[in-house]
Amino acid sequence: MHAEDKGIREECGVFGIWGHEKAAELTYYGLHSMQHRGQEGAGIVVSDGQQLKVHKDVGLVNDVFKHADFSMLQGDVAIGHVRYSTQGAKTLENVQPLLFHSQKGSMALAHNGNLMNAYALRAELEEEGSILQTSSDTEVLAHLIKRNGNQVSKVSITEALNQVQGAYAYLILTEKQLFVALDPHGIRPLSIGRLGDAYVVASETCAFGQIGATFEREVLPGELITIDDHGITSTRFAMREQRKMCAMEYVYLSRPDSDVNLVNVHASRKNMGMELAKEAPADADIVVGVPDSSTSAAIGYAEESGLPYEMGIIKNRYVGRTFIQPSQELREQGVKLKLSPVRSIIEGKRVVMIDDSIVRGTTSKRIVHMLKDAGAKEVHVRIASPSIQHPCYYGIDMSTRKELIAANYEQDKIREIIGGDSLAYLSEAGMEKAILKDKTIHQGVCTACMTGKYPLSMESDKQVSPFIFL
Amino acid sequence: MHAEDKGIREECGVFGIWGHEKAAELTYYGLHSMQHRGQEGAGIVVSDGQQLKVHKDVGLVNDVFKHADFSMLQGDVAIGHVRYSTQGAKTLENVQPLLFHSQKGSMALAHNGNLMNAYALRAELEEEGSILQTSSDTEVLAHLIKRNGNQVSKVSITEALNQVQGAYAYLILTEKQLFVALDPHGIRPLSIGRLGDAYVVASETCAFGQIGATFEREVLPGELITIDDHGITSTRFAMREQRKMCAMEYVYLSRPDSDVNLVNVHASRKNMGMELAKEAPADADIVVGVPDSSTSAAIGYAEESGLPYEMGIIKNRYVGRTFIQPSQELREQGVKLKLSPVRSIIEGKRVVMIDDSIVRGTTSKRIVHMLKDAGAKEVHVRIASPSIQHPCYYGIDMSTRKELIAANYEQDKIREIIGGDSLAYLSEAGMEKAILKDKTIHQGVCTACMTGKYPLSMESDKQVSPFIFL
Amino acid sequence: MHAEDKGIREECGVFGIWGHEKAAELTYYGLHSMQHRGQEGAGIVVSDGQQLKVHKDVGLVNDVFKHADFSMLQGDVAIGHVRYSTQGAKTLENVQPLLFHSQKGSMALAHNGNLMNAYALRAELEEEGSILQTSSDTEVLAHLIKRNGNQVSKVSITEALNQVQGAYAYLILTEKQLFVALDPHGIRPLSIGRLGDAYVVASETCAFGQIGATFEREVLPGELITIDDHGITSTRFAMREQRKMCAMEYVYLSRPDSDVNLVNVHASRKNMGMELAKEAPADADIVVGVPDSSTSAAIGYAEESGLPYEMGIIKNRYVGRTFIQPSQELREQGVKLKLSPVRSIIEGKRVVMIDDSIVRGTTSKRIVHMLKDAGAKEVHVRIASPSIQHPCYYGIDMSTRKELIAANYEQDKIREIIGGDSLAYLSEAGMEKAILKDKTIHQGVCTACMTGKYPLSMESDKQVSPFIFL
Amino acid sequence: MHAEDKGIREECGVFGIWGHEKAAELTYYGLHSMQHRGQEGAGIVVSDGQQLKVHKDVGLVNDVFKHADFSMLQGDVAIGHVRYSTQGAKTLENVQPLLFHSQKGSMALAHNGNLMNAYALRAELEEEGSILQTSSDTEVLAHLIKRNGNQVSKVSITEALNQVQGAYAYLILTEKQLFVALDPHGIRPLSIGRLGDAYVVASETCAFGQIGATFEREVLPGELITIDDHGITSTRFAMREQRKMCAMEYVYLSRPDSDVNLVNVHASRKNMGMELAKEAPADADIVVGVPDSSTSAAIGYAEESGLPYEMGIIKNRYVGRTFIQPSQELREQGVKLKLSPVRSIIEGKRVVMIDDSIVRGTTSKRIVHMLKDAGAKEVHVRIASPSIQHPCYYGIDMSTRKELIAANYEQDKIREIIGGDSLAYLSEAGMEKAILKDKTIHQGVCTACMTGKYPLSMESDKQVSPFIFL
Repeated sequence: MHAEDKGIREECGVFGIWGHEKAAELTYYGLHSMQHRGQEGAGIVVSDGQQLKVHKDVGLVNDVFKHADFSMLQGDVAIGHVRYSTQGAKTLENVQPLLFHSQKGSMALAHNGNLMNAYALRAELEEEGSILQTSSDTEVLAHLIKRNGNQVSKVSITEALNQVQGAYAYLILTEKQLFVALDPHGIRPLSIGRLGDAYVVASETCAFGQIGATFEREVLPGELITIDDHGITSTRFAMREQRKMCAMEYVYLSRPDSDVNLVNVHASRKNMGMELAKEAPADADIVVGVPDSSTSAAIGYAEESGLPYEMGIIKNRYVGRTFIQPSQELREQGVKLKLSPVRSIIEGKRVVMIDDSIVRGTTSKRIVHMLKDAGAKEVHVRIASPSIQHPCYYGIDMSTRKELIAANYEQDKIREIIGGDSLAYLSEAGMEKAILKDKTIHQGVCTACMTGKYPLSMESDKQVSPFIFL
Repeated sequence: MHAEDKGIREECGVFGIWGHEKAAELTYYGLHSMQHRGQEGAGIVVSDGQQLKVHKDVGLVNDVFKHADFSMLQGDVAIGHVRYSTQGAKTLENVQPLLFHSQKGSMALAHNGNLMNAYALRAELEEEGSILQTSSDTEVLAHLIKRNGNQVSKVSITEALNQVQGAYAYLILTEKQLFVALDPHGIRPLSIGRLGDAYVVASETCAFGQIGATFEREVLPGELITIDDHGITSTRFAMREQRKMCAMEYVYLSRPDSDVNLVNVHASRKNMGMELAKEAPADADIVVGVPDSSTSAAIGYAEESGLPYEMGIIKNRYVGRTFIQPSQELREQGVKLKLSPVRSIIEGKRVVMIDDSIVRGTTSKRIVHMLKDAGAKEVHVRIASPSIQHPCYYGIDMSTRKELIAANYEQDKIREIIGGDSLAYLSEAGMEKAILKDKTIHQGVCTACMTGKYPLSMESDKQVSPFIFL
Repeated sequence: MHAEDKGIREECGVFGIWGHEKAAELTYYGLHSMQHRGQEGAGIVVSDGQQLKVHKDVGLVNDVFKHADFSMLQGDVAIGHVRYSTQGAKTLENVQPLLFHSQKGSMALAHNGNLMNAYALRAELEEEGSILQTSSDTEVLAHLIKRNGNQVSKVSITEALNQVQGAYAYLILTEKQLFVALDPHGIRPLSIGRLGDAYVVASETCAFGQIGATFEREVLPGELITIDDHGITSTRFAMREQRKMCAMEYVYLSRPDSDVNLVNVHASRKNMGMELAKEAPADADIVVGVPDSSTSAAIGYAEESGLPYEMGIIKNRYVGRTFIQPSQELREQGVKLKLSPVRSIIEGKRVVMIDDSIVRGTTSKRIVHMLKDAGAKEVHVRIASPSIQHPCYYGIDMSTRKELIAANYEQDKIREIIGGDSLAYLSEAGMEKAILKDKTIHQGVCTACMTGKYPLSMESDKQVSPFIFL
Repeated sequence: MHAEDKGIREECGVFGIWGHEKAAELTYYGLHSMQHRGQEGAGIVVSDGQQLKVHKDVGLVNDVFKHADFSMLQGDVAIGHVRYSTQGAKTLENVQPLLFHSQKGSMALAHNGNLMNAYALRAELEEEGSILQTSSDTEVLAHLIKRNGNQVSKVSITEALNQVQGAYAYLILTEKQLFVALDPHGIRPLSIGRLGDAYVVASETCAFGQIGATFEREVLPGELITIDDHGITSTRFAMREQRKMCAMEYVYLSRPDSDVNLVNVHASRKNMGMELAKEAPADADIVVGVPDSSTSAAIGYAEESGLPYEMGIIKNRYVGRTFIQPSQELREQGVKLKLSPVRSIIEGKRVVMIDDSIVRGTTSKRIVHMLKDAGAKEVHVRIASPSIQHPCYYGIDMSTRKELIAANYEQDKIREIIGGDSLAYLSEAGMEKAILKDKTIHQGVCTACMTGKYPLSMESDKQVSPFIFL
């Protein structure tokens, strides 16, 4: 499912590397492997020890860098960022990494997450005379670090991080140091890898695979890592809390080949499909997944249930930015967009349709109808995660509560709306079992959008912005 | 597998529509669904009954039409074409449909296939004073039709078709008529569909699904169909021979949701995987397919063998034309291209690796090594088609015989070269059984590239060009 | 004046070079200097003695070649072409040089001019079974040369040239030879130059200046020049007639630094201005020229009359293809296009406004009003050429007769229409005196568009096309 | 002369309009007419009374706005900016207007000029914790205005302007007000015009002509104008000093149809040419100007001296950004760039070559040699301004002192270097007489770059940056 259709948008992906002469190129490949985490913009800042240089723009990684001159991006250290797609106009100033120059030196920031008290912090900074140029909460952290003319250091970063609340994974680069920080609950993923002598940091481990690096360890909740010519050191800026990794990373957001908090995403999805088959079996002929994100769960469901897995829906690989959208008239006449049903497989069959999640319900409805139009006798909708009923304050731009179908209707009404012959969700317990299987007590997942159990309490309604303002 | 890596390139896809006011737009969507059949260039010619207008260019369908002004392409009839990718420079003159104007009227041609006697026919035409502007054999047919100042008609087309030898599916458009022709053996696929009152023609039935049309029937070998204001009429320009549908359409070329000669491609591939599991079982832990073309066969193998199907190899969806290829140095350090292994799935496992075919063996070798590097204990290579040992003269640009690994080495040597712990191909009988299952006596497949049994005899070595010249 | 506004469009410019290792680059610069002769498209064909390679596209020379890979255009011989701007769509197939491949070898053609019997010749060729791909009469010559399967040679070209009627300058390139031909009246300009050992051919001598070459001689009317490894040879394919160089080349079309038929264009224009001052003096304060084409004449008028020359109209240099045209509403509110008056120079003055010619009268009217709005007390319009009353059949795309203001109104009515306080044209005698000054009896100018005296009689009205058909 | 070749670069041009429903479109045309003042980037900020919206990018005005959606730029008020060309990479963050958002409202700034104490002010601001995002001194003013969390108002702007030193013309826009300010010496040009009921502000009056507006008055040195719904009000933020309009605006920078401080630029240049003819006559045959900037002076010289003015040098109009620069080898073989000599005019003549100024001397040398190569018997170089020997601190990016030929060599040595047969400059008195002719005692010109007489003293060497840093 395309993020826009789905109603879920990941905020971003970050990547960093220390100590490799091809730092910028490797960052390009690292970002490339995390393209699914953000299609709005991409950027790289590189340091040669003397100076920070940047290349960034709106668009996909390939488009942003196709005319880049990497000889202008020499240096052993780099950080990069991919940014999710908004409906807005070209807003280059929001593309990260943000780069700040001053007479005392430069600083670049790349951020995945969301600060809950950004609005209040901004007001305070502006009251003191600061001018913020972007609408991103990333810039707030930069101003907090530089407050009172501070140098960028472990001390000033620690102080600044103690003023922000939210879910975040930060990379901060100066000419001489790379800082890596993860929020106290570890809601967003962030891992450390090695490539020869170089250190690598990435939101997803698929970036390590992409560049031939090996996974070393997870960044810990509340940890601040400093990498410089003296090596790597770890400090804490906050007490460690129980890890609350975002469940949606497993359900939908991460790439199947990534390991999120040591759990392979494909495997967790296949497990979710298996659990779902146990919890909600269906009297049907074939199992069909909605490509691409539901394929693993569908295979799991098929394996567990003994029903054959069939490729009943095809995703058109060539639908990109330049695809000409069919007019309403042509759409009504049957012109397809991204997904097409395979009539000779579907026709006359009782189909179990596996989807990873339902947000607004509009795409589920469309797919059910598409299957019925292609001759499916019955369509049993099985969702490989619990229903989404609450907004996310931690960096995923879901539809607003008003749009969340499960926040407004009972399950049977939803079934009726989307047109399925039956509908079942995976239970919260089933999901946690599928993901955590053999994990220790310190591990947990954030299920706030499904259960309303938010790991961070919100101080006041006024301060909290579910998403960026301005 | 990307066509370039694979060493197999489809020649083209054709699409036509008669009697719909949005003829050009629908052709765009039809071509779009057949993008996999040709990425070099695309074009549409439309007729409003008075005049033929063209829009075509090198590049993908989306790129070619992103700035197209469809209001300039008004008309109820259109034909379109996608062309395969060559290594050559920008050669717009070869992009089809070819459009010819004369004082008596215009004619457009779209062609999928290859003429075996094109070289000799060209020489003859030039000797008579004709000037050919392209290097394509499609233009040869146009000159044969117009020879002696002929009008474009059922008669002149029949005469011209009787002079050419090869495998072909032709669409020929004038201001007032649309002609559809298929070679006497029906080596290339071509089907007729309906969209309301309109007639649709396409190389693959997935184009019907894309635009909401329904399949009507296959064009028959040796059939010439004429569509005009008086309706649709069918004649023959040649005796009907046993149909010899290109087996590679099932193995690799067509989209899984297409029905080729009434057989669903995904189903045929799954069957091939099942037959392969019967013929060549493996003592292993998991089944992994090389995405995307081998996924169906891998699922079939898994289902038949009882082994779990796992997503052990991931294809990066964002590697497009603007992807910056890693330098040799970075590639050696481990930077990946399109495919990445999933270590946490592969590690310590005995893997059955399913691929649809082996051409040069270079990619198979790369994938086997990639799996081993990711920790696979054993890699058992299973190929869901017989080995390819002979060149194709009928429109598929395979590597030359010198490059075909199976034309040069014994099977065990191939296994050694690619590094697998075992290697097995599907038998010819197994493949035919998987494809033809419940077909009548009149149906057959062309397996020339695997068996050397060419349905057309070649008159003389000199005349035959395995591929286009000049 | 921009050609579109003016109502006059040059057909083309040709360039050729033999014997320089940077043949393609030099052709680029040569074409660049003749950009004013054609803005629709540009192309270069180069020969390395074995093969002809082409790069061409619609657009300006700079745009066409900005991404060209000159390392793919190696060779010692090249020809090039710039094509005038039409209102039509992208018509790459008409961009020259035209390139034809055959099994016996290749041929490229570049043409400036117009064939009067092209329509009849085309019909004849098509009747015989030839297929023409372009709508240009250039292609007709190619087919005439190749008729009956001929080789491209001095003999076949001579025979073909004897079948065509019109005004033309042709460059014809094969792998081994470069042919240069000029029509029997020498209506279009064409000169030979030298650059070291290399031979250069160009429509305008400014191309020689651009690349550092020196002028050698004019190509003679009816001359066919052959350049190959044996050197340069000259033959005639027609009797020499009195030269009838197109007068509009002096008046408007050529660059002021070119020498057309041995006469400098700027000097001829200044002379025309001087003659005009003698024939039609004005009681005024200042002389103002319409930039750029009338500047030379205005300076001549000022010098002869003793009135000061002032820069009363400014041309905006940055109005290019991407300029956003003001809406009608904004234009009425006073938003200017290309030309702006200089109020502080014009205000309160009696102005002699010099323009090189009047075609439709619409721009003259606009400029007179612009000057009056800027405060001019009187505007005396002086045109530095005779009035244009007849169509051109020799390669200049003027407005149709219906649009030519002087073909429809008396001079005083024209004055009234354009709003001048007085109006005078240069006489035919004055123009010829200004241009030919010290020329011999063999020289003449074609003044057909002004006088209706056509140097070539037209065989039949039906056959003659003032411009390209189809 | 192209700015890069010349060694002089204007900093910028500003444009503003209050009270017209097509504010953004008119700003586009206004900027377009001032394109010569800056080719690096362009931008427009528009206010609809509620919100500021921006469109800006690197590149020419046409390129920046060719895909702009003006329907997204609705509003009655707009400011715009064109920025000069630097050698640097794409630096969008420096393109103006700068736009700052805060929770209390937004502010946009457009600036032409240079602040001498920007470096010290920046250091001070950063010390206090401010983060500046651009390297432009324009941003410094924004921070000074917002210091201590101020609102943008007449008061805070006045206070901020009293902290900066330099030459500047500022436009400051909020949702509700437009502020216009000029430095106390009025070194940079800035005028007010009317278009119906709307107010217009522009660096050059040619922008008024472009949009059909009429000139109202000059902005006075030290004046702060406020335009809002209550009308226009004027205050002073500084004592009025004698106006010191930059002399280079007349000599080279402004468009000939602009009136700078009430003096027409073309007329002043023609006067300079006339004064030069009186001061430094030459025994010669023809007068030739270096196009385009020296044409007016050359005409004046010719008129005063009685020598004929001839078009001996031609400027190629099509040399733009995409022009492929000839290799050194081709340049040495004679391939020309922008300027070509006209041999048939130059040959055998004694030429007076008029140039507006000499900066580094390299282009003068090239042109003298070009004329000699084209056969000039003698070349008498006459410069229509005094020699440039000092750097500019007020917003013109001239070459550094080391590069200024007149700062390093005596006049006769310069003549020898550039290869002229004689060389003369216009005297300072001659230039002032030509420009100021009939002006009052309050008017003066800044001749600092010629005479070293700087109107502003510099407080300390350390603080002063002749140009932007970082």
